[in-house]
Amino acid sequence: MPDNRRASLRDIAAETGVSVATVSRVLNEHVNVAPRTRDLVLQAVERHKKRAAQPGKPRTVYVRCPYVLTDYFGLIVSSIAEALKIHGVRLLLDAGESAQHSDALAALPSQDDVTAAILILPPEEGDQLVTLSRAGFPFVVVDPRTPPPPDIAAVSAAHFSGARAVADHLIGLGHRDIGVIAGPDEWLAGDARLAGHRAALAQAGILLTPDRLRHIEPTTAEGRRAAAELLGLAPRPTAIVCFNDKVAVGTLQAARERGLRVPEDLSIAGFDDIDISQATDPPLTTVRQPLQEMGRIAVTQLMRVLDGHQPEALHIELATALVVRDSTAAC
Amino acid sequence: MPDNRRASLRDIAAETGVSVATVSRVLNEHVNVAPRTRDLVLQAVERHKKRAAQPGKPRTVYVRCPYVLTDYFGLIVSSIAEALKIHGVRLLLDAGESAQHSDALAALPSQDDVTAAILILPPEEGDQLVTLSRAGFPFVVVDPRTPPPPDIAAVSAAHFSGARAVADHLIGLGHRDIGVIAGPDEWLAGDARLAGHRAALAQAGILLTPDRLRHIEPTTAEGRRAAAELLGLAPRPTAIVCFNDKVAVGTLQAARERGLRVPEDLSIAGFDDIDISQATDPPLTTVRQPLQEMGRIAVTQLMRVLDGHQPEALHIELATALVVRDSTAAC
Repeated sequence: MPDNRRASLRDIAAETGVSVATVSRVLNEHVNVAPRTRDLVLQAVERHKKRAAQPGKPRTVYVRCPYVLTDYFGLIVSSIAEALKIHGVRLLLDAGESAQHSDALAALPSQDDVTAAILILPPEEGDQLVTLSRAGFPFVVVDPRTPPPPDIAAVSAAHFSGARAVADHLIGLGHRDIGVIAGPDEWLAGDARLAGHRAALAQAGILLTPDRLRHIEPTTAEGRRAAAELLGLAPRPTAIVCFNDKVAVGTLQAARERGLRVPEDLSIAGFDDIDISQATDPPLTTVRQPLQEMGRIAVTQLMRVLDGHQPEALHIELATALVVRDSTAAC
Repeated sequence: MPDNRRASLRDIAAETGVSVATVSRVLNEHVNVAPRTRDLVLQAVERHKKRAAQPGKPRTVYVRCPYVLTDYFGLIVSSIAEALKIHGVRLLLDAGESAQHSDALAALPSQDDVTAAILILPPEEGDQLVTLSRAGFPFVVVDPRTPPPPDIAAVSAAHFSGARAVADHLIGLGHRDIGVIAGPDEWLAGDARLAGHRAALAQAGILLTPDRLRHIEPTTAEGRRAAAELLGLAPRPTAIVCFNDKVAVGTLQAARERGLRVPEDLSIAGFDDIDISQATDPPLTTVRQPLQEMGRIAVTQLMRVLDGHQPEALHIELATALVVRDSTAAC
């Protein structure tokens, strides 16, 4: 067996997670191989052939961000673009709200010139991702919306510990009655943030009551409305945690409308640390998300998969950092 | 001559701007054709052959934004992505600061699978764009940094009239001593904005004196520093116009540090109308840029070029809109 043939057997074994012997059995058409394993190996072989047939062709990765590229998603996509460029890989972009309604995933494996994908906050259910993975198409998920299936590579921020850090900070300042304005209910990051918040409260012997919690679309206008509701409660919460900086801006507006001083009468915290959080008066205490690192790590993960390695830790969580500014103070 | 052959002669004529007879002369190797015209036609023929050879292949457009995809550039790229998708065209993205240092333009015409390009605020000199255009490669420039050469399609915002509208607004409020914090000196949009500002002032019989003008990198920190300088002048300007919303945020901070109330003691205006301009207290009077429209129109222009038409108006300027909020008031 020539050296390069042995090398590709090894590559295919590494890529599919089966032994070199099994790859060899599939290629020699032994019957003693499970159908799913055979499919996996044959798909990997096809991909290798495709790559070998186009030695001069740069590899191309499909990146989908089904949201407008604002200060949040735009930073992730920019860092993915820069990281792919370092690897000499081209980026095929699908971005904006319209990318939410396409059934692009199903078509990916049949696209000759697309090697792999990075999917940012994919709207699909987990089983659709599993189907794509079973088709032998390599991809990485950034900021998964639902818990990613075990064998799919994913990168996200440590939402749980970020939210716990904010709540700990407020509890440390003496706050006991803390309102929460969270994102849409079905969002994994939102769920993790809420769990982090509850965990910190529980450790201080406090339970979050349902009337202190709002789930909204993360916009300034919705934040203002939800905050007005929370500020109308008796007793009035002494602090409001927002799981989004724009929502925190709306909360600042609602406080101002009621004549409340921030932070003297009400502490407000945001989440994300986008530019807006330093433009407010007072500037916002918030949680910095590692947006650019998420993009870079996603590319590193993907390049490892493309080079035939199993990514070491399939689900990577990157640390967030509490940024204390002037919108929070002692109760 | 079969119909489709006649059609492609016509296409090539339209694409190159020469007559069908000339295209025919080139293809029949007549000597009576200027060398430059022959090159143009032969390049267009090559492109047509390439397209014809890949009938099932989707067309691919290279989009370069050599800046991080923030609330400003990210909105342009998102709208380009959505518009290209409607046309069934794929988007190859080159984004982030690292895209500034690449010599991507020279390589474009030789890339088989790239049909055309959209270049956002390209850092290259005009002659490099002319070289790309002479090579017969179709592209559109969004927000050109220097005046675009006459036969290159470009889309930008009406910077002149936007800045004039802000200055008119302040003059109407009784302001006569208006400081200006502009962007870097060599930037076309900055030059147009400053010209608009000067024009409005001149109409009111006022000349902008050099001590009232600062050129800076458009960040909040630089804005704060420049505003502190302007506010230290005697007499103190009663209004400051910033050609960027982030700079206006820095100016608000500088005013606050000196104990000046906005708008009672000082009027402040921004430019761009990104999210940040509604997060400040008071919210900023600013100029809305048609970012998403710019992206869409760039795609429309490009599709017309690709379909073999000459774009009707090579340089398109889209209207801006003055947005009056609470940071400006009577002098």
